[in-house]
Amino acid sequence: QTSLITGRNRFLHYAFDYETPKTLVIPSLGVGFVFRFTQFLVVMYVVGYVCVVQKAYQDTDTVISTVTTKVKGFAFTNTSDTEPRFWDVADYIIPPQGDHSFFVLTNMVVTPKQVQSRCPELPSPSTICVDDCNCVEGHSDPRGNGIQTGLCENYSTTARTCEVLSWCPLEIDTKLPEHALLAAAENFTVLIKNSITYPKFNFHRRNILPHVNSSYLKRCEFSRLTDPHCPIFRLKDIVSEAGEDFQDMAVKGGILGILIDWSCDLDWWAGECLPKYSFRRLDNKHPVNNVAPGYNFRFAKYYKTADGEETRTLIKAYGIRFDVIVFGTAGRFSIVPTIVNLGAALSFLSLVPVVADWFLVTCSRKRDLYSRHKTTHLTEDADSASVRDFSPSLSLMNLISTD
Amino acid sequence: QTSLITGRNRFLHYAFDYETPKTLVIPSLGVGFVFRFTQFLVVMYVVGYVCVVQKAYQDTDTVISTVTTKVKGFAFTNTSDTEPRFWDVADYIIPPQGDHSFFVLTNMVVTPKQVQSRCPELPSPSTICVDDCNCVEGHSDPRGNGIQTGLCENYSTTARTCEVLSWCPLEIDTKLPEHALLAAAENFTVLIKNSITYPKFNFHRRNILPHVNSSYLKRCEFSRLTDPHCPIFRLKDIVSEAGEDFQDMAVKGGILGILIDWSCDLDWWAGECLPKYSFRRLDNKHPVNNVAPGYNFRFAKYYKTADGEETRTLIKAYGIRFDVIVFGTAGRFSIVPTIVNLGAALSFLSLVPVVADWFLVTCSRKRDLYSRHKTTHLTEDADSASVRDFSPSLSLMNLISTD
Amino acid sequence: QTSLITGRNRFLHYAFDYETPKTLVIPSLGVGFVFRFTQFLVVMYVVGYVCVVQKAYQDTDTVISTVTTKVKGFAFTNTSDTEPRFWDVADYIIPPQGDHSFFVLTNMVVTPKQVQSRCPELPSPSTICVDDCNCVEGHSDPRGNGIQTGLCENYSTTARTCEVLSWCPLEIDTKLPEHALLAAAENFTVLIKNSITYPKFNFHRRNILPHVNSSYLKRCEFSRLTDPHCPIFRLKDIVSEAGEDFQDMAVKGGILGILIDWSCDLDWWAGECLPKYSFRRLDNKHPVNNVAPGYNFRFAKYYKTADGEETRTLIKAYGIRFDVIVFGTAGRFSIVPTIVNLGAALSFLSLVPVVADWFLVTCSRKRDLYSRHKTTHLTEDADSASVRDFSPSLSLMNLISTD
Repeated sequence: QTSLITGRNRFLHYAFDYETPKTLVIPSLGVGFVFRFTQFLVVMYVVGYVCVVQKAYQDTDTVISTVTTKVKGFAFTNTSDTEPRFWDVADYIIPPQGDHSFFVLTNMVVTPKQVQSRCPELPSPSTICVDDCNCVEGHSDPRGNGIQTGLCENYSTTARTCEVLSWCPLEIDTKLPEHALLAAAENFTVLIKNSITYPKFNFHRRNILPHVNSSYLKRCEFSRLTDPHCPIFRLKDIVSEAGEDFQDMAVKGGILGILIDWSCDLDWWAGECLPKYSFRRLDNKHPVNNVAPGYNFRFAKYYKTADGEETRTLIKAYGIRFDVIVFGTAGRFSIVPTIVNLGAALSFLSLVPVVADWFLVTCSRKRDLYSRHKTTHLTEDADSASVRDFSPSLSLMNLISTD
Repeated sequence: QTSLITGRNRFLHYAFDYETPKTLVIPSLGVGFVFRFTQFLVVMYVVGYVCVVQKAYQDTDTVISTVTTKVKGFAFTNTSDTEPRFWDVADYIIPPQGDHSFFVLTNMVVTPKQVQSRCPELPSPSTICVDDCNCVEGHSDPRGNGIQTGLCENYSTTARTCEVLSWCPLEIDTKLPEHALLAAAENFTVLIKNSITYPKFNFHRRNILPHVNSSYLKRCEFSRLTDPHCPIFRLKDIVSEAGEDFQDMAVKGGILGILIDWSCDLDWWAGECLPKYSFRRLDNKHPVNNVAPGYNFRFAKYYKTADGEETRTLIKAYGIRFDVIVFGTAGRFSIVPTIVNLGAALSFLSLVPVVADWFLVTCSRKRDLYSRHKTTHLTEDADSASVRDFSPSLSLMNLISTD
Repeated sequence: QTSLITGRNRFLHYAFDYETPKTLVIPSLGVGFVFRFTQFLVVMYVVGYVCVVQKAYQDTDTVISTVTTKVKGFAFTNTSDTEPRFWDVADYIIPPQGDHSFFVLTNMVVTPKQVQSRCPELPSPSTICVDDCNCVEGHSDPRGNGIQTGLCENYSTTARTCEVLSWCPLEIDTKLPEHALLAAAENFTVLIKNSITYPKFNFHRRNILPHVNSSYLKRCEFSRLTDPHCPIFRLKDIVSEAGEDFQDMAVKGGILGILIDWSCDLDWWAGECLPKYSFRRLDNKHPVNNVAPGYNFRFAKYYKTADGEETRTLIKAYGIRFDVIVFGTAGRFSIVPTIVNLGAALSFLSLVPVVADWFLVTCSRKRDLYSRHKTTHLTEDADSASVRDFSPSLSLMNLISTD
């Protein structure tokens, strides 16, 4: 029974005896100041940089968004090459859906009435021929326009080229108008509707703000100074905010990013979460290293003639693709990143005594006195309980010199 | 040689002398309990919240996904305005590719046989005229339908409006059917195929689960209760799960998000990684502040008449755009976040003695005894080794009172 | 006045008295070695794993990108079923815009000259009928092709099926060519232009590298060994790099991912940031559990006959959809993650003395001596200042045995 009690006591001592470091209080203003100042620096860093600047106490989430766009405006073209034509949204927006990426046609090379047949190639060093021997039947040059039939035909009165099987007449895409056909496109407007969600925070928002009403929306136009929250943009303004000239860009086409930044601080003390618009040309326009400049693609409208033959109008479309890019990260106070960052900061607080101790034993005036009382040296050869408790630094000297 | 040995010894002492705090063991059940309880709280926090709830020991990656969709179903329309017409997928899905975003046509305003010509504007305060003087040649109103020719013509027997150059006849988009033309679209079904990848973990998965076979896929239909993993959805169910009424939404159109959440715990003990479907209306339908409601766009089908003139059928298409939005974050055990979070927690363990010491010297019954043995006060004026080792609190009193 | 001075002194003592642990220096090579070695392990872990392998000192950002694609090439088809036809980009790329996702038509089922009318259904168990009683007027089977009129008609000389209202003649999609019609598509090339941005670091880059000039771009073709930075890809190479056979894939279609990895280390000492291309089939091609294989969609070209009737050519298009998927995370040195990770590591350094102390009092040869000088035991019943300072372990024994 006695051993049981003893065992229980042993366990109690093991579990609940509290082992605490013996400390020495040093009434030195210098050391105390170094200690408090170092502590202050660490606290300043935590409060100032981690909390205020980096908001490291927040959990973050990435935005999920939906965009619809609707362009308005019309144009009239009447050049020497083409017949007069009126253009509306259904003509110049391709594809028509009004997705987050929309293309506005500004210039084009139209090749009407193409049919499947044979015609002489466009003249180039590899297609010019003298007689049929220069042309190989079935050969197709990736930079050419069709599959050679093996015949050499008159392209014009001065040039003979190999005949190809293709959609004829061939497109001559060097005849691109120097001034954009739909120069009027600069006055088109686009309404951008954007809904966003931060799923982690169950936060939803639209770029049409709560205070905007129908009548404002009918007459407003985005302007960074006067109407920063109007979701209707004039194409010319978008392009010029990106530092480009609309008429320049309209000739060869390009890609323009409409960036909507929804970076938000969702803590209640942080104010409202509003979209920030910015505009940037996304393709490279610089003449140096400017391979494959601009933006264009080919598409065709297919028709059937009365006798059932298929014809098409091939259009090489140049224009500006507007990509609405929505990005952003929202932050909201969360306990885990707070703990992690506070923990890391507390680790630095545990460095403070190291600094202060170092100052104590090396720089303070009474360092010998302090270190004598702070540190006890155990001599290596002490088998019994002989410790020089009151003159440790002397014993260290002895130890080292007698070795 | 002696000094070399001494130097080596000095270095050995510097490098390998171990400096450890002197400690005082206090057999107080109260203090011991406070110490252990505070330790227990910190460990609980680490285990319970950081590890179990937040899974802070995991490295995370964001999903990369591909989606294809395929709609099935057909409809028949026969209203007083239009001639009877049968609709299949190629007619009502725009664009036809079956991308992650697909549009189902449900209502429309069709303006057939438009040609480039001149016609009087639709009557509105800004277009009504009395004679040619009210119309300015070349003027184009962004809210109008074309470019004014400067003439004033009879729109009807009662109204005269300015003539415009445009695609004529003009579209009258106020004639939108009150009941959606393709009301039958609610019974269309859509098969969603979704493959995802977490590149950091080299993890691939499809939403068509391994146990699903062809015969199940031919007859199944998504239902949250009975078939939660069938990838075929009835449009009506999608809309009603989002809390909307299909027939209401079909009239003016809208955008509906099909959200697939692939958030997964990829640790082996965490079970399977399965997609979770949810549905949400993404545009704003509420009548308050509801500027530019619904979803519609205009597109045209181009024809050529026998004499080569271009005509078009303009369609203002209303319908529901379904956006398949795939998101998710996968986590898997990784050493770095584990270390970071354990480190932060250990920092909190180093706070525990601070709490226990505070309790020791302020709240415990024998606090005078404890603090007398724990803390040694060095008197400031002690130049020699005079330290009051066994009665420090008294000497502190002396120090303060004699100052 | 005296009490004011005393109060000020009391505050000065409270604020600037420095409390430092009393320490015991133990000149034991064993314990010292354990201490230094444990310290070394922690430092190794911090430097080696956290900094070098995981780059935990970096702040990270996710890529934002824009992609345009341009396919080149043409094909000629001449099979027994179809008339000879020449195909160029405008014919086989759907949609034509050259977005980040482009579809190359490789095989198809064409159903020309469909008009809105009535025709007998394709024979299947549910459509075969004997007389009109088997057909229900207005019934529409989702797996059928139209809405039943209630009549039973001769489909062929041997089979009678229910008549349906539909686009007639009906599509017979089992007549898919066994060899892809546009087998020549394997030699088409695609130019991929990709601009990326890391908005947090204001870092922009294109996949057309600065040293690439027009003449190189005209003749180069991507090859992992010889031209790893040429942005022009032969479709056949893309498919074979993904471990697939182009001709196999072309028959039923599929989805192929072109993955561009822009993961970069933006620290100045880390070298250039270059795109890494990889290719992967994104849909499931394996015969096991292969429900709904391949990739296809239906679209129609609409025509009007001379008498104004609408006809269409329905095309069930099979082909390969190429999805350009751009991903990547860039890292750059930042102070906050550095602090957080260093903090966590320092926490581990504070564990080192725990390990060394444990070694000291349990494993070292002179453990009794060391622990006698390190630890002072306070007896529980000591009301006065009676502490057994030089034989604490004995007093503990007494304590336990006399209880």
